[in-house]
Amino acid sequence: MPLAISKVSPPAPFEEPIEDFDAPAAAEALAGRLAASAVERDRAGGHAAHEREWIRDSGLLALSVPREYGGIGADWSTVYQAVRIVARADSALAHLLGFHHLQLAGLTLYGNARQQRRLYAETIAARHFWGNALNPLDKRLIATPSAGGWVLNGVKSFASGSVGADRLTVSAWDPLAGAPLIGVLPARQAGIEVQADWDAFGQRQTDSGNVHFKDVLLPEEDVLRAPGKPASAQATLRSQVAQLVLVNLYLGLAEGALNAARGYLREGARPWIASGVAAAVDAPFIQHRFGQFHLLVRPAQVLADEAGRKLDAAWRRGAGLDAAGRGEVAVAVAEAKVLAHRAALDIGSQLFELTGARSTGAQYGFDRFWRNARVHTLHDPVDYKLRDLGRYALDGSLPEPTPYS
Amino acid sequence: MPLAISKVSPPAPFEEPIEDFDAPAAAEALAGRLAASAVERDRAGGHAAHEREWIRDSGLLALSVPREYGGIGADWSTVYQAVRIVARADSALAHLLGFHHLQLAGLTLYGNARQQRRLYAETIAARHFWGNALNPLDKRLIATPSAGGWVLNGVKSFASGSVGADRLTVSAWDPLAGAPLIGVLPARQAGIEVQADWDAFGQRQTDSGNVHFKDVLLPEEDVLRAPGKPASAQATLRSQVAQLVLVNLYLGLAEGALNAARGYLREGARPWIASGVAAAVDAPFIQHRFGQFHLLVRPAQVLADEAGRKLDAAWRRGAGLDAAGRGEVAVAVAEAKVLAHRAALDIGSQLFELTGARSTGAQYGFDRFWRNARVHTLHDPVDYKLRDLGRYALDGSLPEPTPYS
Amino acid sequence: MPLAISKVSPPAPFEEPIEDFDAPAAAEALAGRLAASAVERDRAGGHAAHEREWIRDSGLLALSVPREYGGIGADWSTVYQAVRIVARADSALAHLLGFHHLQLAGLTLYGNARQQRRLYAETIAARHFWGNALNPLDKRLIATPSAGGWVLNGVKSFASGSVGADRLTVSAWDPLAGAPLIGVLPARQAGIEVQADWDAFGQRQTDSGNVHFKDVLLPEEDVLRAPGKPASAQATLRSQVAQLVLVNLYLGLAEGALNAARGYLREGARPWIASGVAAAVDAPFIQHRFGQFHLLVRPAQVLADEAGRKLDAAWRRGAGLDAAGRGEVAVAVAEAKVLAHRAALDIGSQLFELTGARSTGAQYGFDRFWRNARVHTLHDPVDYKLRDLGRYALDGSLPEPTPYS
Amino acid sequence: MPLAISKVSPPAPFEEPIEDFDAPAAAEALAGRLAASAVERDRAGGHAAHEREWIRDSGLLALSVPREYGGIGADWSTVYQAVRIVARADSALAHLLGFHHLQLAGLTLYGNARQQRRLYAETIAARHFWGNALNPLDKRLIATPSAGGWVLNGVKSFASGSVGADRLTVSAWDPLAGAPLIGVLPARQAGIEVQADWDAFGQRQTDSGNVHFKDVLLPEEDVLRAPGKPASAQATLRSQVAQLVLVNLYLGLAEGALNAARGYLREGARPWIASGVAAAVDAPFIQHRFGQFHLLVRPAQVLADEAGRKLDAAWRRGAGLDAAGRGEVAVAVAEAKVLAHRAALDIGSQLFELTGARSTGAQYGFDRFWRNARVHTLHDPVDYKLRDLGRYALDGSLPEPTPYS
Repeated sequence: MPLAISKVSPPAPFEEPIEDFDAPAAAEALAGRLAASAVERDRAGGHAAHEREWIRDSGLLALSVPREYGGIGADWSTVYQAVRIVARADSALAHLLGFHHLQLAGLTLYGNARQQRRLYAETIAARHFWGNALNPLDKRLIATPSAGGWVLNGVKSFASGSVGADRLTVSAWDPLAGAPLIGVLPARQAGIEVQADWDAFGQRQTDSGNVHFKDVLLPEEDVLRAPGKPASAQATLRSQVAQLVLVNLYLGLAEGALNAARGYLREGARPWIASGVAAAVDAPFIQHRFGQFHLLVRPAQVLADEAGRKLDAAWRRGAGLDAAGRGEVAVAVAEAKVLAHRAALDIGSQLFELTGARSTGAQYGFDRFWRNARVHTLHDPVDYKLRDLGRYALDGSLPEPTPYS
Repeated sequence: MPLAISKVSPPAPFEEPIEDFDAPAAAEALAGRLAASAVERDRAGGHAAHEREWIRDSGLLALSVPREYGGIGADWSTVYQAVRIVARADSALAHLLGFHHLQLAGLTLYGNARQQRRLYAETIAARHFWGNALNPLDKRLIATPSAGGWVLNGVKSFASGSVGADRLTVSAWDPLAGAPLIGVLPARQAGIEVQADWDAFGQRQTDSGNVHFKDVLLPEEDVLRAPGKPASAQATLRSQVAQLVLVNLYLGLAEGALNAARGYLREGARPWIASGVAAAVDAPFIQHRFGQFHLLVRPAQVLADEAGRKLDAAWRRGAGLDAAGRGEVAVAVAEAKVLAHRAALDIGSQLFELTGARSTGAQYGFDRFWRNARVHTLHDPVDYKLRDLGRYALDGSLPEPTPYS
Repeated sequence: MPLAISKVSPPAPFEEPIEDFDAPAAAEALAGRLAASAVERDRAGGHAAHEREWIRDSGLLALSVPREYGGIGADWSTVYQAVRIVARADSALAHLLGFHHLQLAGLTLYGNARQQRRLYAETIAARHFWGNALNPLDKRLIATPSAGGWVLNGVKSFASGSVGADRLTVSAWDPLAGAPLIGVLPARQAGIEVQADWDAFGQRQTDSGNVHFKDVLLPEEDVLRAPGKPASAQATLRSQVAQLVLVNLYLGLAEGALNAARGYLREGARPWIASGVAAAVDAPFIQHRFGQFHLLVRPAQVLADEAGRKLDAAWRRGAGLDAAGRGEVAVAVAEAKVLAHRAALDIGSQLFELTGARSTGAQYGFDRFWRNARVHTLHDPVDYKLRDLGRYALDGSLPEPTPYS
Repeated sequence: MPLAISKVSPPAPFEEPIEDFDAPAAAEALAGRLAASAVERDRAGGHAAHEREWIRDSGLLALSVPREYGGIGADWSTVYQAVRIVARADSALAHLLGFHHLQLAGLTLYGNARQQRRLYAETIAARHFWGNALNPLDKRLIATPSAGGWVLNGVKSFASGSVGADRLTVSAWDPLAGAPLIGVLPARQAGIEVQADWDAFGQRQTDSGNVHFKDVLLPEEDVLRAPGKPASAQATLRSQVAQLVLVNLYLGLAEGALNAARGYLREGARPWIASGVAAAVDAPFIQHRFGQFHLLVRPAQVLADEAGRKLDAAWRRGAGLDAAGRGEVAVAVAEAKVLAHRAALDIGSQLFELTGARSTGAQYGFDRFWRNARVHTLHDPVDYKLRDLGRYALDGSLPEPTPYS
């Protein structure tokens, strides 16, 4: 019988003082471990059970957990930096890391103090990995009011990180209230069947398949947001936290593709017979195109960093955040998102114009940059981000708060 | 012991009069057969032994064989049309078809009358499938003069269609002459090891691996072009025949991607929540982008057709072709090539902006358009085509005849 | 008192047999005359009274007049070729030539046999230059039914070629019928005030100002299309005739810009200090960009020619043309229009990346390519052409017949 | 007889305390004054004697003069902000302001303490406006060693701000030394003829014509840099100061164009007949394109600001600046330059796709954005900036210090 999530022992102290935790270094170390098998695991797809433990071991799951609950208390800029670093090597596992923190954000944005204390503490104590069953476009999961909470039945698709998760954030539709609720569930319990059926051609180890629920009780105390509760400006920050995970993941992909092209050109590439130069890197067309790549990545980096800082500032305002402040974050995030989207896709596809036919061999796995970027950039359509930015630039109107903007 | 290729019975008559052979219909029928398993075979990679027989059965291998030798005697425009149609469904097998005819072109361009008679007749009689071991950038295959011909030792890479071929066109380097020769060999003989080691991320069933030669005798009578023989304008048409195979293959990919997107949008796609329309095809941004796609494909089609007609006219001029006439073909082919290159890559990548996240599922295999286009468009760098076109537009200078221009 | 247009002597015979009229040669000769002063006249703006006479003298005004009425009877492809040739040198006066023939097209499409005989014959006999007062977006010209016709009052904007015209095609709104009519008027008569007030920054000598009408009688016999008369597929070809004038004008601009850049680079330009080459035309980046320019112009040319041939075929079908046939023309024209639009604007702006700072001097007048293209490409928005093409490519739907599509 | 520049009374105190000088406010006020006549003056071209006095009156000429010499002592970021603000309204006069400060930069970078004291003080006291006769590509000005200095003979082209200048920085070629020198001259003296012959199609009031020198003595004490003196890393910062003037000028143009389009769309524009909306700003294609514009401007702004901060930091390092530090500035400036180049040109040309045909009327003067951007972006070729960025991104190599990089 499902129980309210609780009753854990107090958080185990970190081995080293939290304030000494070096998130970028931890992310680099994790990226280094993941890099060695990234090409192979991309080809294999499926669930990276082993490598998920590396993420857990890295300490990075505690990044966004407030210090008062035993976490590292890093700001979002630091979380995003870690996601970006890991994504350079392995964007699928970087997504798991990013979306874990997105679920935790929900706890701060929707949960009450009691829930935060309990669930954050438990997350630290038991080193929980959180997954996502929140797809707002999929209304097939139904919540029926019941004694002590709601009973869930149905299915949720695109549930990133669900396979192997300890906790799941779920959204479900309450037909009586005519509104959705959001809650937290232990992922491993009778009635929840997490399917490892994700089969997209990219981001193959994101465990983003379907989750089936059969008579699963969501106790009232684990409901973060009851049906029909109006969303504060603060609560609607969640979509911006999510969008910036995507932004930094795209950026990590773009940077990873740039690194791959650079390494190949400096070490492996032959100059074209008609180039008249001795080394590929000296060919004018290669230098020119590489300059274009640089100008795709660099502005995206700068604007992503700025959006992160704005999100951090808005986050710190808490319940005091107003619609204007929230909207300014959304604009900054949208700017960075379109640039990062383009950088990841364009470099992921065009790098081959420089590296040539031999670089398509399986041992390099260079196609994974495009495939991962292509799949991940479809979370929501880029044309509507451009529309939102256009509206803003035309008359200052801010993006309407939705799960995507 | 390798023998001169010969001694076949006279060509078996086609069952139906050759003049009634409907190449587009045959290509469509073949494409239809291939389509059903194209996604699956792309995923599997490797050698499509079974489906190569379908190509043989289609009669399309006889397309470019002159009628006087029992072939269909189609012009290049017809051959290219067939390649394009097949490539819409399966660009890997379309490549085998196209490169078979490219090898046959070599027979007309380099071979003498006796060789043409013998080898064409044999090709018709035994329904031979020709493969390629001609990579001009790979000089590792050495030809040592010997009694009655040359002995070949070494390796050739990017040997498209080599696995399962009956005949191979090879180029080899004669160090004494300080020049290459070109000849024809039976593919299945002692000393020739065709490796099925092609592992690029696209065009996966093109059998484009390495071929190893050990003490293989190339008899003098099977040498199409002796070392040091100067190339006539006619002979240098070969690279244009090859480039137009690529062009039409890219076009088939672009058309295939457009068809896939259209079908999905009309049947499977949900309009985005913010679109305000009931059907995806009614969304303004989707219509606008689809218009852009149309304008990528259409000019490429028109210019590819025109380049084909120019090649046919030059081909008919035979030995009377001069450098200017040859150069005009090369310009027309270069124009079509850059446009087809862009169409295939851009549509192959951007179609997902319209079809969305669900269309990345494995059952659709929509990523194969980009992967196949990406690998195949690296035959030679697009930037040098643009340079050649720029030189032509600046002062009318024609592309220098090379294996790529 | 305004009279029905009539009573002219029978058409004066051409001095040379009409079948010998060499339209391209005449256009080249005219372009040559106009070229010498094109830069200066562009700067001066205003009405090119003198140069309009050169157009008249060229014989090109008779191009589209059917032979039975004493004209040259050229097809539209020939008319467009002439427009394109003239536009290379002077796109403003090319517009006058093109729109003259557009007005004559209205006579065939809307007029009855009697009107055609009378007005065509008169046009040949008196060497009439026709102008345009048809702007369909400007509903300020009111037609009040009156004895023997309609009385016109109001104003028409964007009346290309109105200054100096002999005949004007006008559209006016009949409030009683709740529909527009179309008629022909002698341009020089009491009550018609043609204002030379066109002050756009490009196409400066197109005489496209406002025309004011005060109590002008349009006799019934000069009404080409009565209010409320349903438009046949044939009649709606007029917008396609108009759009192809624009297409060929844009193309002439693109070609003119390309010619200007080529000439300057070959004669006047210094290579950049960091280029490492002795002549500007040898710099790799210049060759590469020029190749891009070539690929902007060439497809536009090919598709414009094809659209012209399709229009000619549809034109010959006359009243037998159906909606499908008309729609296929509209698709072909839209394809060419977007390509020509891009070619003219992009080359007109980017040519300077190659020719450099000194080429901005007044003596060259190279900015006129962009200015003329920019103003002229705003006839109707390119985004809706892309939308129309997208709809067609998505489901085969043909553009809705409007004054712009 | 030319004298050493000297003998001015001590600097007149600013009326208000310098630390209270609000540069952005002063720039906005100046921009406001200039805006009213900017369209008209652009059309007229020539020397804006009257408006140059407004610049003088604004106090902005003292911005970069160190406080110790009576100036405002603003950092470069502040100077650039002022240039950008003024350029939104009038990019020609903004150039005069920017290049005045560029000349002053030369005093700090090349001059000795005595020269700085004397010339800065004089600049403040007499409110001097400095102009430029430094074009490094024009070697026609010859410096012949003479008693007490050099005698200058010849001509300098592209001498921005020369008409109406009080002081000119000149470079001249010393054939004996085989090297150039740099000095300062009073602009109004016998032997110097400043020609108002600038006739480019944009930046028309930048007074950038030819300056002729006939037997002009450059006294030794006014030589900032003697022939053959090796350039320190600090001294080579000058080209970066210059490039960032250009960057901010392009940005001002892009912002001005965006403002113009926004204003027109919100007030004057009619929605297209096929748009289905009541106001132009509500049309999806307009919003989408405006979003693209926003994404052209925004990254350019952010990177220009960052480049400014990096320049300020390098400036403060003075003689301690090393090649690496100088190179990092050059990379940052190159990044911003390409982005600002694109933003100014693309928006300047494409804004009309949104504002339509009527917006080409002379009263708006909207074409000046493209014309000004087009002329000004030709200072040095953008392709070599891309090449430099490509080299940097490929292997970290820094741009070679030249007058342009």
